Amino acid sequence: MASAAPPRDLTSFFDPRSIAVVGASNDPGKWGHWLAAGALRGKERRAVYLVNRAGGDILGHPAHTTLGELPEDPELVVVAVPFAAFGATIDAALARGARAIVAVNAGFGELGSEGEARQCALAHAVRAAGASLIGPNCLGVVDNTTDLQAAWLQVGVDGLPAGPIGLISQSGTIALDVAMLAREVGLGVSRFASLGNQADVTLTDLVRSFAAHEATRLIALYCEDFRDGRAFLRAVQDAVASGKPVVLLAAGGSEASARAARSHTGSMTSDERVVEAVCRATGAVKVGTPAEMVDVAQVLLRSARPRGRRVAVVSDGGGHAVVSTDAVSAAGFRVEPFSDRLRAELTAATDPTAGTSNPVDLASSNVDPNAFERVVKLLAASGEVDAIVMAGYFGGWDGADAALAKREAESGRAIAETVAAAGLPLVVQSMGADTAPARALRDAGAPLFRNVDPAVRALGRATAAAEQPLVPVGAVADSAERIDTDGYFAARGLLADAGIPFPVAERVETAVDALAAGRHVGYPVVLKAVSLLHKSDAGGVALDLAGPVELREAFDAMHARIPVGPYAVEAMATASHGVELIIGCRRDARFGPVLLVGIGGTYSEILRDVALTLAPAPEDEVRRMLLGLRGAALLTGARGAPPVDVDAVAAAAARLSEVAARHPAIAEIEINPLLADPEGAIALDARIIARADEEADA
Amino acid sequence: MASAAPPRDLTSFFDPRSIAVVGASNDPGKWGHWLAAGALRGKERRAVYLVNRAGGDILGHPAHTTLGELPEDPELVVVAVPFAAFGATIDAALARGARAIVAVNAGFGELGSEGEARQCALAHAVRAAGASLIGPNCLGVVDNTTDLQAAWLQVGVDGLPAGPIGLISQSGTIALDVAMLAREVGLGVSRFASLGNQADVTLTDLVRSFAAHEATRLIALYCEDFRDGRAFLRAVQDAVASGKPVVLLAAGGSEASARAARSHTGSMTSDERVVEAVCRATGAVKVGTPAEMVDVAQVLLRSARPRGRRVAVVSDGGGHAVVSTDAVSAAGFRVEPFSDRLRAELTAATDPTAGTSNPVDLASSNVDPNAFERVVKLLAASGEVDAIVMAGYFGGWDGADAALAKREAESGRAIAETVAAAGLPLVVQSMGADTAPARALRDAGAPLFRNVDPAVRALGRATAAAEQPLVPVGAVADSAERIDTDGYFAARGLLADAGIPFPVAERVETAVDALAAGRHVGYPVVLKAVSLLHKSDAGGVALDLAGPVELREAFDAMHARIPVGPYAVEAMATASHGVELIIGCRRDARFGPVLLVGIGGTYSEILRDVALTLAPAPEDEVRRMLLGLRGAALLTGARGAPPVDVDAVAAAAARLSEVAARHPAIAEIEINPLLADPEGAIALDARIIARADEEADA
Repeated sequence: MASAAPPRDLTSFFDPRSIAVVGASNDPGKWGHWLAAGALRGKERRAVYLVNRAGGDILGHPAHTTLGELPEDPELVVVAVPFAAFGATIDAALARGARAIVAVNAGFGELGSEGEARQCALAHAVRAAGASLIGPNCLGVVDNTTDLQAAWLQVGVDGLPAGPIGLISQSGTIALDVAMLAREVGLGVSRFASLGNQADVTLTDLVRSFAAHEATRLIALYCEDFRDGRAFLRAVQDAVASGKPVVLLAAGGSEASARAARSHTGSMTSDERVVEAVCRATGAVKVGTPAEMVDVAQVLLRSARPRGRRVAVVSDGGGHAVVSTDAVSAAGFRVEPFSDRLRAELTAATDPTAGTSNPVDLASSNVDPNAFERVVKLLAASGEVDAIVMAGYFGGWDGADAALAKREAESGRAIAETVAAAGLPLVVQSMGADTAPARALRDAGAPLFRNVDPAVRALGRATAAAEQPLVPVGAVADSAERIDTDGYFAARGLLADAGIPFPVAERVETAVDALAAGRHVGYPVVLKAVSLLHKSDAGGVALDLAGPVELREAFDAMHARIPVGPYAVEAMATASHGVELIIGCRRDARFGPVLLVGIGGTYSEILRDVALTLAPAPEDEVRRMLLGLRGAALLTGARGAPPVDVDAVAAAAARLSEVAARHPAIAEIEINPLLADPEGAIALDARIIARADEEADA
Repeated sequence: MASAAPPRDLTSFFDPRSIAVVGASNDPGKWGHWLAAGALRGKERRAVYLVNRAGGDILGHPAHTTLGELPEDPELVVVAVPFAAFGATIDAALARGARAIVAVNAGFGELGSEGEARQCALAHAVRAAGASLIGPNCLGVVDNTTDLQAAWLQVGVDGLPAGPIGLISQSGTIALDVAMLAREVGLGVSRFASLGNQADVTLTDLVRSFAAHEATRLIALYCEDFRDGRAFLRAVQDAVASGKPVVLLAAGGSEASARAARSHTGSMTSDERVVEAVCRATGAVKVGTPAEMVDVAQVLLRSARPRGRRVAVVSDGGGHAVVSTDAVSAAGFRVEPFSDRLRAELTAATDPTAGTSNPVDLASSNVDPNAFERVVKLLAASGEVDAIVMAGYFGGWDGADAALAKREAESGRAIAETVAAAGLPLVVQSMGADTAPARALRDAGAPLFRNVDPAVRALGRATAAAEQPLVPVGAVADSAERIDTDGYFAARGLLADAGIPFPVAERVETAVDALAAGRHVGYPVVLKAVSLLHKSDAGGVALDLAGPVELREAFDAMHARIPVGPYAVEAMATASHGVELIIGCRRDARFGPVLLVGIGGTYSEILRDVALTLAPAPEDEVRRMLLGLRGAALLTGARGAPPVDVDAVAAAAARLSEVAARHPAIAEIEINPLLADPEGAIALDARIIARADEEADA
């Protein structure tokens, strides 16, 4: 593993002593207008210089015509000039000793190879000067803890709402959306960075910087392109380990959206299942929309760390009790009946009409604004539940009765404090989410939702992330060592050398060779035309040849169909209780080698049942993946069949993943089928595809 | 099929000439207060009488002390009195010739058998007087088209918002939730009825009445108990056929929520998959939460009827284009590239930075408030898409630039009109859903959402409902005809008589019988101990007995294990390309016999792959279910196997479903396995369970 470099110091971006906005403008249709207005909001804290070729007065401040005119070297330079002036502006900024540059301009890597060249030159110049650059093609940066607003993001007139979320986004409107949704639930942004094309400062740099930022309690990412995926992965692992949860909105799960991402930022998106594997390996929580991002952030920031699947549902109406219980169950939680003792306690604390099993339906007790509180306290003390979902109309007294509403607000605070003290996760759905009592509960630290589905889904995602053991991810070789990747025997050799069992086999070219091999190997044998990548489909496999006559016949027929050698004569493996699996590795453009395991044979078409993880994968993780397959019952003994040797399968897959991780020259390597039975696992076929040279060298 | 009775006339509930509220009160803690206040809101349209034992002045109106005192017979009487006074109040109301009674009081069927008896007596008295009753244990009724407010539902101070939704709910807070969410998107309620215990007026009566109500354009139901499920089904089919879509929030999908529903209203919930089958049969749209209900209502009320799965995504930002495209794809739609011609048209209509494949990313064109409109017009004229999803920040000029915001609002109206004229479904997600331009678009008739997932899921549900062919549901016998339901041979006999093929079999008791049967049937044979319901598990099946010696041996061994006869000796069915299926019927407490088909054998454990529909089921519907199974490839020819005779399977299942529908004495009847091969399908085992007498007679 590459040892983690110390995080880059990005202080000059987020808390510069001075800032210059080049391209500042009085025209509200121009970026330079909003960037200048934003920068001026920090003028009590730092020197703010506005630069415009035409000079004059901008937003009530005198503008300089060039960076050279400034009375001091600007620490941060924000560039939003016409494209023709871009290069000269960068040169001037570096000449003036700028430590940090935010480049808003587009016209670089997102346009393809010509733009890519411009972008490389830009990054090179910046680094040569010892400076750093965010962008190009970005919206800027914000730090609400240092009055830094160097981005065009329109959220009301006050900029991004302040709060605990460190937001990194490859899209301005997604960042805006997240910020607006966060504000609606009383959350906000500590720092924001627009990712842009990552010419110099990368996603990974930003994650490490945000993780070290005290006011940032959670990192929210929208990303279309992970670049150095393994470095990103380590940064996220470190952030999560240091107590800063990471929520990841990863784009490009569908073919059409991957097309859109390429068009939007020239990004190379990753397979959704690879991103899921990355999240499993790091403890990051994957979400699909800005709304889910804020929902999960609420739970992670405001709820205790999830610790199990037993949920108590408490509602002030029977209908919401029923609907919420369905939603909670659908999110993978268990709503189990309480003990008699707890039921008795709940009965004593509520009206006789109340339902006191699980769910608790306060029924007529709901006229008492303290009823929720009494129930939550009993549940928190019971030890019978791992989380509580409150549902219905907490806050309903607001506007109806001031005295009762005041008591309800106090009760809300008491509820939040009770579950916090008990370390018990709580999510609250209320029709009255906009009321003062509900806001009091939220402000005291409980996640509050208008609707139940988003609430319990967010709790579900947080719980799944907490349950997942962190997957240690081994090293991946990055030198393009040359190995033999030519065909079946190369694949077999590599994998057998790694300790994966194969049947005895001999390479043959002629019928005479084949018959000799048959004698050595021992009948029955299998004959394969191994010049083909997809042998079975083309009639290139003859199974269970009982003796020399059958082998000769099969060889002649196969040679007539597929005259190109070599061929293989192999011992025929049999298993009375065998299950066929597929194990293979391929390279993700950003995250490198990825291991896939799945049920093979007839079931593969029916079940389409595979799991992915990053290579090299530890055996433990592979075993967990195998036992999590939909068809896992086939491995553990369906309908009375004996269980197969799952450890042997896990060992074979782990070894295959090590081979792929050790050899960057391999684009794909696969064993299909791997035959598993109660005694072990044996590879019955293998194939390998080499990377094209330009890929391997990249 | 029972011929549909003419719908009950419920005019006296929804537009009475006069109303009396018994139990009217000045105390805001009492239901009678809110019911009286609500009733008074209609005093311009009808006589309103307030009744309270103590008389005096209530809400500024003189109260009567008894119904007897009223100057005229009240058409509608709303009863919210202490339980002790309830019976006398009902008697008095009927004596005064009330046509309709709303009974708010609880204390009836929801409490079990004693309450059930009270409830029966109440219904009987009301019907004997020629009157009707909604409740007991209900919240009342509202009709916003007749200024009738006879319910305690607290939505602001103005009662339920008016609009096109006819709302029927078994829960007050769910109704309130739906109404509040509807109001947020500019929708509201035409009529509301609280279902209560359905002692007299049932869910079915209300659905028929609402379907005939002109101002009701969509019927929204929250229901815990469907009572006469088949009558309900016909009412929903009729409503949908008459152009009033039905959205159903059905509770009790999980075991815990079914427990809650029993406690809430004493309801007998139905299996979620049965409710799904009912929705498929009727065209109703099933949802899981109040929020989904309103989301789907928006799409059904404001969007053209869905017509396919090709969706165009149009966004004013690259990030939203990507995220929305993922959401649209996840909802089961296709986001396919446009033709070159359409791309050229889109390119001409947008900025050079725009992405003009699918998704369309307006990019820098987004500074033009008419850009969305131009794109939508081109898409609508193209014939290349079945629906449009707009995403991002439509409305963003609001508050930033008044002139541009005005143009954006005009553009919003033009967009809504364009898609309406083209009959093209559209859903809009906007961060600016609260802005004037977005509201203009919504008010012109386009569904508007703050977040993209709810938008595209609702479009997905509406599309699935539109695609589903209406399933004709045949008649179910309701007389408890006595048939032989005693054991294996009874099941075999019933099913074979219905035309389902079985192997030749003989019933035997002794070894001598068995050997004689072996000669008649012909070897190889199968021996079964048919006294057992679960034969195989107890070693009660011996397969493939080649001759008399093997049969004798098997019989002796089986007889030693299972000494209770009878036994069956049957011909051994074999199939080289056979697939085992399970087909069976069981009775849902509310919807009657339900047919289940699924893949059997080893796969049944792995796939847990079954489909349900109402019995009797037409062969077409069964074929559709079979081909929709996850394991359908096993039937259509997985990995080169020949396809099995799906028509024969469908015929067998349809016949089995007819048997179940014809004989209410059957609780369960099942063929497991049904062996299907390319030549046909044959039943290899059958079992039947009779209903307990009290159930069959109920």
